[in-house]
Amino acid sequence: MKPKFITLDGIDGAGKSTNLAVIRRWFESHDLPVLFTREPGGTPVGEALREILLNPETKAGLRAETLMMFAARQQHLEDVILPALADGIHVVSDRFTDATFAYQGGGRGVPLQDIEMLENWVQGGFGPDLTLLLDVPLEVSMARIGQTREKDRFEQEQADFFTRVRAVYLERAAAHPERYALIDGNRSLEEVRADIEHALARSFGMDV
Amino acid sequence: MKPKFITLDGIDGAGKSTNLAVIRRWFESHDLPVLFTREPGGTPVGEALREILLNPETKAGLRAETLMMFAARQQHLEDVILPALADGIHVVSDRFTDATFAYQGGGRGVPLQDIEMLENWVQGGFGPDLTLLLDVPLEVSMARIGQTREKDRFEQEQADFFTRVRAVYLERAAAHPERYALIDGNRSLEEVRADIEHALARSFGMDV
Repeated sequence: MKPKFITLDGIDGAGKSTNLAVIRRWFESHDLPVLFTREPGGTPVGEALREILLNPETKAGLRAETLMMFAARQQHLEDVILPALADGIHVVSDRFTDATFAYQGGGRGVPLQDIEMLENWVQGGFGPDLTLLLDVPLEVSMARIGQTREKDRFEQEQADFFTRVRAVYLERAAAHPERYALIDGNRSLEEVRADIEHALARSFGMDV
Repeated sequence: MKPKFITLDGIDGAGKSTNLAVIRRWFESHDLPVLFTREPGGTPVGEALREILLNPETKAGLRAETLMMFAARQQHLEDVILPALADGIHVVSDRFTDATFAYQGGGRGVPLQDIEMLENWVQGGFGPDLTLLLDVPLEVSMARIGQTREKDRFEQEQADFFTRVRAVYLERAAAHPERYALIDGNRSLEEVRADIEHALARSFGMDV
């Protein structure tokens, strides 16, 4: 079986952390070799860039931020994702390029075609086989962010920011339904889990 | 007088540090307001990126390295260079985009047209009014590097690397003679200083 590259994405508070555990258990129960990683990060260079990006003190400019995201991604692809896939190991990444389109593009206003230019330069034609996109209404996102943890730089931004971020995620999923599984995260954990397991099974050609 | 953006560039060992002091004294003696800065670096984001880039342990990929260079540059332009020029202050930068063409392009093999694409994205049409390009033969460069200080990551690379780096610097100076002052750094300090002072005076429209 050709190893798959799967990404999990969505606005803050959509339930990524909880559902990463669901994905992990699914791979375990099917005894499939898998590597879990995250963006920005996943390599020493990427983790160092992550620190710069998520530090509320640094205040990186829009284009600098976007370039750092793609620098971290290039390193991530070269050192982690592509070697694992070449070794027959599936890869699950917590966030990928969709997040750059949504956050730096939709949220902060970098033109989407500029992000596409960088995407092409760094990734060539490479991209996820499946993107599990967790979606929740804005109020749910904001409530969950406020309740659960300290706000980092991106999370401090305003509600209209997240509205624009969410819109780009939804537009991308609508434009490429064959690649995205759009999952309503505003339901019980069991219902969300069933949808994720269904999307994974379908992607692997299992009976569902 | 429209404030000027001046860069000092050249292969390692060409004498940049020594001649930065010459430039500094020239501005002092003409009582011109000037800001000295450097790349990669010049801002908190840029200095953090500089640490990643110059750390021999990180081994950043080619494209990641190039993206980080331009991320640092964007921040440098936005936070330091452009505000100073807007305030009527001349700016002198120790290295700028020429170094990316020479090191990442000539030295490490990133296609020069890809660097141009990133240059356009980050700088628009903005660039130096004058680039003081210090040039020395490869053997002089290698001897000076070996003698004077601990080798950082870029300096550990091989002689053929520096040959390619130097070639790109010289090609760029030859293609745009109106912007570059090509200065033979393989002479006495006094002769080099006279050339630098001459180039600065000409750029400022002074009698020379």
